[in-house]
Amino acid sequence: MNNEQNKIMIIPLGGLGEIGKNMTVFRYGDDIIVIDAGLAFPEEDMLGIDLVIPDMTYLVENKDKVRAVVLTHGHEDHVGSLSYLLKQLNVPVYGTRLSLGLVEARLKENNVSGCSLIPVKPGDQIKIGQVQVGFIRVSHSISDAVGLSFKTPVGTVVHTGDFKIDQTPVDGKIMDIHKFAELGDQGVLLLMSDSTNAERPGFTKSERTVGAALDDAFRAARDRIILATFASNVPRLQQAVNSACKYGRKVAIIGRSLVNVTTIAMELGYLQIPEGVLIDIDEINRYPGNQLLILTTGSQGEPMSALTRMATNSHRVVEICPGDTVIISASPIPGNEKSVGRTIDLLMRQGAHVIYERDTGIHVSGHASQEELKLILNLVRPKFFIPVHGEHRMLKLHAKMAEELGIPRENIFVGENGQVFEFAPDEGKMTGKVAVGKVFVDGLGVGDIGNIVIRDRRQLSQDGVLIVVVTLDKQKGSVLAGPDLVSRGFVYVRDSEELMARAKEKVADVLARCETAKITEWASIKSQVRDVLGKYLFEKTGRRPVILPIIMEVDKE
Amino acid sequence: MNNEQNKIMIIPLGGLGEIGKNMTVFRYGDDIIVIDAGLAFPEEDMLGIDLVIPDMTYLVENKDKVRAVVLTHGHEDHVGSLSYLLKQLNVPVYGTRLSLGLVEARLKENNVSGCSLIPVKPGDQIKIGQVQVGFIRVSHSISDAVGLSFKTPVGTVVHTGDFKIDQTPVDGKIMDIHKFAELGDQGVLLLMSDSTNAERPGFTKSERTVGAALDDAFRAARDRIILATFASNVPRLQQAVNSACKYGRKVAIIGRSLVNVTTIAMELGYLQIPEGVLIDIDEINRYPGNQLLILTTGSQGEPMSALTRMATNSHRVVEICPGDTVIISASPIPGNEKSVGRTIDLLMRQGAHVIYERDTGIHVSGHASQEELKLILNLVRPKFFIPVHGEHRMLKLHAKMAEELGIPRENIFVGENGQVFEFAPDEGKMTGKVAVGKVFVDGLGVGDIGNIVIRDRRQLSQDGVLIVVVTLDKQKGSVLAGPDLVSRGFVYVRDSEELMARAKEKVADVLARCETAKITEWASIKSQVRDVLGKYLFEKTGRRPVILPIIMEVDKE
Repeated sequence: MNNEQNKIMIIPLGGLGEIGKNMTVFRYGDDIIVIDAGLAFPEEDMLGIDLVIPDMTYLVENKDKVRAVVLTHGHEDHVGSLSYLLKQLNVPVYGTRLSLGLVEARLKENNVSGCSLIPVKPGDQIKIGQVQVGFIRVSHSISDAVGLSFKTPVGTVVHTGDFKIDQTPVDGKIMDIHKFAELGDQGVLLLMSDSTNAERPGFTKSERTVGAALDDAFRAARDRIILATFASNVPRLQQAVNSACKYGRKVAIIGRSLVNVTTIAMELGYLQIPEGVLIDIDEINRYPGNQLLILTTGSQGEPMSALTRMATNSHRVVEICPGDTVIISASPIPGNEKSVGRTIDLLMRQGAHVIYERDTGIHVSGHASQEELKLILNLVRPKFFIPVHGEHRMLKLHAKMAEELGIPRENIFVGENGQVFEFAPDEGKMTGKVAVGKVFVDGLGVGDIGNIVIRDRRQLSQDGVLIVVVTLDKQKGSVLAGPDLVSRGFVYVRDSEELMARAKEKVADVLARCETAKITEWASIKSQVRDVLGKYLFEKTGRRPVILPIIMEVDKE
Repeated sequence: MNNEQNKIMIIPLGGLGEIGKNMTVFRYGDDIIVIDAGLAFPEEDMLGIDLVIPDMTYLVENKDKVRAVVLTHGHEDHVGSLSYLLKQLNVPVYGTRLSLGLVEARLKENNVSGCSLIPVKPGDQIKIGQVQVGFIRVSHSISDAVGLSFKTPVGTVVHTGDFKIDQTPVDGKIMDIHKFAELGDQGVLLLMSDSTNAERPGFTKSERTVGAALDDAFRAARDRIILATFASNVPRLQQAVNSACKYGRKVAIIGRSLVNVTTIAMELGYLQIPEGVLIDIDEINRYPGNQLLILTTGSQGEPMSALTRMATNSHRVVEICPGDTVIISASPIPGNEKSVGRTIDLLMRQGAHVIYERDTGIHVSGHASQEELKLILNLVRPKFFIPVHGEHRMLKLHAKMAEELGIPRENIFVGENGQVFEFAPDEGKMTGKVAVGKVFVDGLGVGDIGNIVIRDRRQLSQDGVLIVVVTLDKQKGSVLAGPDLVSRGFVYVRDSEELMARAKEKVADVLARCETAKITEWASIKSQVRDVLGKYLFEKTGRRPVILPIIMEVDKE
């Protein structure tokens, strides 16, 4: 038995020190199990980027050792990069039925086929390589979420996944707290636990409390109700449907992602809509407003979403009317506060009554707050602890809580993506590092956009571009055509004819000087054009467009 | 007496239905008084824009009637567009000393001279045209803030300015609640009141409570303290200085805006720093860490600010060390949550102990919460009410509160920028509209950047630009040079030589076809190039760069 057999390695490839693109390597000996394969949405300075996925180099390099991917739940930040992984690695994927249902649809979209998706049930134990993997039911803002246990000869590792402890979940299926307690009794070497809400004191409220708030809103509404929430929040959708049924409303669904999720959730039995309640969106005009609930996407004020289109009065079917009640059953994800506020304002200006975050009880988080995090720590009583899923300050705070609960400081590890954590029965340490990073997906390109392109886009976005074209005589170096100036995003040329005319003269001067001085290297000519023009334009406008001189050459003989 | 003499007109040019660029026209007969002249910071989709100011057309068109600008306080969103206004209109500006001190510095920066700045004291009454203007002390997150009263034969108008009701202000100068009560007793025709915090229940805490929290933090700190707050929050700075003195720390100040404000505030006596306490930033290494307080900008995670530079380890003087306590005494302005979070994380990673919003009491708002808003409404008992300064939903909520307090619904006006509100002794109504809008300041240009340029910048920022240049023979239309392709922000060409080579062939094909078909109109050639190339590139990359075909012509004969 070589040394590798005596230890467990944990390597987060994403999700440590950040919210999003969760992906963690569990390695025991020659068996690698990948926990989740998520994506992140681009930060605002990642111009033009569609998605961000983890750098999977470590997995590709250790291809022969990767035995499986295990999924905790079906949110994009946990399954969204799976299709990119499976294009490079043909490994089985284990997950609960709803998770796999959502994954399947996404794989199809991305033209990934021939994958082995293996459904598991909460409570199942599966042998993967030498590791016994257990799936433990947890509560979260999507159905069918699980935490994970990994039993090895070295010890047991527990990963909570994203979770909260909901004592009254909508589907009645309470988190398997017993299992966490049992594992704790048997002895747990390492716990990894969700830190998303580590900054929030107390307990997160039950999803069911939202049902009561929805009921109140439904009772008060006199006309149509339009409800926006996260497409994947099946328990929330179920509660909205329940209220609709209670108050005699038909349900129409708008928005591609919501239609996808509800279709899958209904097929798999996670969302129950009684016969005759669901109607097509094009049928809504057949019913009076007080018999309608429209479920829609756009709770984050996303520019292209159905709710935003309604707010800007550009939706194909739904026009907001005075009397409509719009319920935004979500809170803005950090960064989206302004777009959500704008959407609310636009809806109100059209006369809608808007119920939003400010209104108590209309949304609850899907993540455990401080007291829940402490409870899990106390139940599992791990020897070692790694707070996961969260930005650095959340991890730190979670670590501090663990310390307060009696875990020795030296047994708690706050790390970052790429950090290798090694555990033996009596030892835990942070050792080396593996390559990690943000891989940008832009259109069809994966990883082909790097810092240079992003920097160029940023510069273009600030002051636009000015292109200078000139055709020179190959023999004499004299100007045959141009210089012509074309700009985009710099000044609107019709307003600035004089500026552009003078700029052209400046370039012509440079070219004449170069000809006289017999300067023929294009690089030198271009750099002089850039300098003179850049200086002139900054002086006149205070702006620094990207200046692109292009020289062409024609042989006149 | 013509009809105009019997009414008061209120026309918000900025700040209604938005946070920022506050500017309101008060007009009685032929006397126009401008309340504040603020700016707004660009939204994230206003690419490359530096500032946003109100459209001042109405004032320019009524130049001869504008008697004065009156300022409520010195925040940028109330005084930041004054230099642009004064470049077009030569009118006196009334304000309290600190407001004018800040304005003066800004006017100098913008090369605006010869302005008449007239200092007033809270409590002063000044006759402007036929209007008696009163300045009423209020509490806010800057010293020397005032509300305004306008007495006319038609009735009295009260404007709160930005305010909160602080029972224990740091400078001991309590808001002149008596004056609001007195005006209410005498009868007020119209109240305009700050709606920024209309969504917050209860009372806003006193600024003084932050002093206690700072004191706690100072007591616990063992090494340097670095404190970031809004540069203009003089009461906050005073409390930080007080704590520094109490715990024997010297004070160094970093960041241009903070140096400006503190210099002015000290000169004018609003900020007291005892002799020998203030040291130059370059002297900090002479003192042990536990004898230092560094005041800095960057509480919003602004990319170029001093704190952000420290966080990214790129500050000229201050390097963050383990043991440093960093206090971010501010809450993120909506939209800045992510950059503030990032800054905190970076500081923590360098070992600093960071005290931030999550830590109770380290910041309080400068705006009145619901109970304070109700108190003012009850004190002033206006006949008519316009909620001002706030996004639409805040105005609506503030209006609802007023209605609950007994103001008839028809006497409450929720409007938007440009709306003309007219008031006679017994009548209030919304009548016409004047031109308003966002004027973009970009570099030296004011208002020359419109939607087309912004749209171009947005497109450039998404997928970059691809320029296609070709030189044609003037007589034959045949290609003399090119086509050449140059890209920026699209793909990094070294990685995509094949793509670009194929794209070039596509263009060459189009040009050959055009030559054969004797198509000579450049517009038609260009549009064919754009179509063919756009389609090809989207198919290959899923991206849509801006394609700019440029044709040059050379006469070979």
